[in-house]
Amino acid sequence: MSQAVLHSYYRSSTSFRVRIALAMKGIGYRYEAHHLRHGEHREAPYLAVNPQGLVPALFWTDGTLLLQSLAIIEFLDETVPDPPLLPADPHGRARVRMLSQMIACDLHPVNNLRVLTSLRVLFGAGDDDITNWFRHWVSETFEPLERMLADSPDTGTFCHGERPGLADICLAAQVKSNQRFGVDMTPFPIIRRIADTALALPAFMEAAPENQPDAE
Amino acid sequence: MSQAVLHSYYRSSTSFRVRIALAMKGIGYRYEAHHLRHGEHREAPYLAVNPQGLVPALFWTDGTLLLQSLAIIEFLDETVPDPPLLPADPHGRARVRMLSQMIACDLHPVNNLRVLTSLRVLFGAGDDDITNWFRHWVSETFEPLERMLADSPDTGTFCHGERPGLADICLAAQVKSNQRFGVDMTPFPIIRRIADTALALPAFMEAAPENQPDAE
Repeated sequence: MSQAVLHSYYRSSTSFRVRIALAMKGIGYRYEAHHLRHGEHREAPYLAVNPQGLVPALFWTDGTLLLQSLAIIEFLDETVPDPPLLPADPHGRARVRMLSQMIACDLHPVNNLRVLTSLRVLFGAGDDDITNWFRHWVSETFEPLERMLADSPDTGTFCHGERPGLADICLAAQVKSNQRFGVDMTPFPIIRRIADTALALPAFMEAAPENQPDAE
Repeated sequence: MSQAVLHSYYRSSTSFRVRIALAMKGIGYRYEAHHLRHGEHREAPYLAVNPQGLVPALFWTDGTLLLQSLAIIEFLDETVPDPPLLPADPHGRARVRMLSQMIACDLHPVNNLRVLTSLRVLFGAGDDDITNWFRHWVSETFEPLERMLADSPDTGTFCHGERPGLADICLAAQVKSNQRFGVDMTPFPIIRRIADTALALPAFMEAAPENQPDAE
């Protein structure tokens, strides 16, 4: 067993998610930075160990390659159970996974750097187009998300009760990304409150983009 | 306890995933069709019960609203365990979730109908642009996916061993969508073999787009 190794980019929202989970669980790891804007993740040495060439990638202590932030976090939760990042009951788990995937499947992928770059290259999108695109997809998910959080008795200090978990990790990382695109959070008071609360926790601060070795 | 209700669109790849899981587990349900191309999912009666206004949405037998295909399938797997759709060990579960999310987070969302429609409306994308866009994002994920399946001793008749599960559900639904965009599957022989095998299983056939009440 050796130390876990996280391949990351400080500003990557999905890398941020995994860093938060690692910090919450107190799992130490070596940090390997890949500068996405310089294409360092598409170079041969990295592709040799991670065919997808994306971050985050976590090499676990036994050498296993783990990809996909939500899959990685569920693995960490099953392997290092304390503190739990998912509720114990199937209904609670379904709700937390649902809220998480609304961000991880419906919102973030469409606003990912490689998609925004494709819009510029293929369709000549300019800075304003990119900003509008980003904000549009945030609203498409945050409007129902805000309403679902408002309507549910399960919503507490965090997305699901009084402990931060997977949904808060996804929410906080997304809200952090939103800041770079000047998203107006006024229509989303509950999301903002939860994200602000989460981002002030030690594990979230330790994992924050600005506190990574490759931060610019 | 009443019958489960699935809000679905026959051609929706994520609805197809949930239909397969329901069929594999032998769970009966009432089918409510929403014609996405006619915008029926954005009408007030549906938005009143599902704020996100997307399909699939599953109202479980106790009335709980379940959204997000992977969250729904994990709920079904926890609630109706037989046959299992995820392996029992954390490493196997991480691998199956990883393969599933490569499709569900990196590929499908970018090729979703609402994104393709936005490309047409915002950037004047034509049919050829849309086809190229779709094929590009399939390749971006299928190339590493093929290599990862080829390199792993865990790959068997299906993505993970000899039983169909969550990753095969995602793979088969994606391959089915690919057909509408004429994706050349020659570079992906393992993916093609697994998808063909899965799509020929009774549960996959029962759940297939062409066998739904709203098929055109």
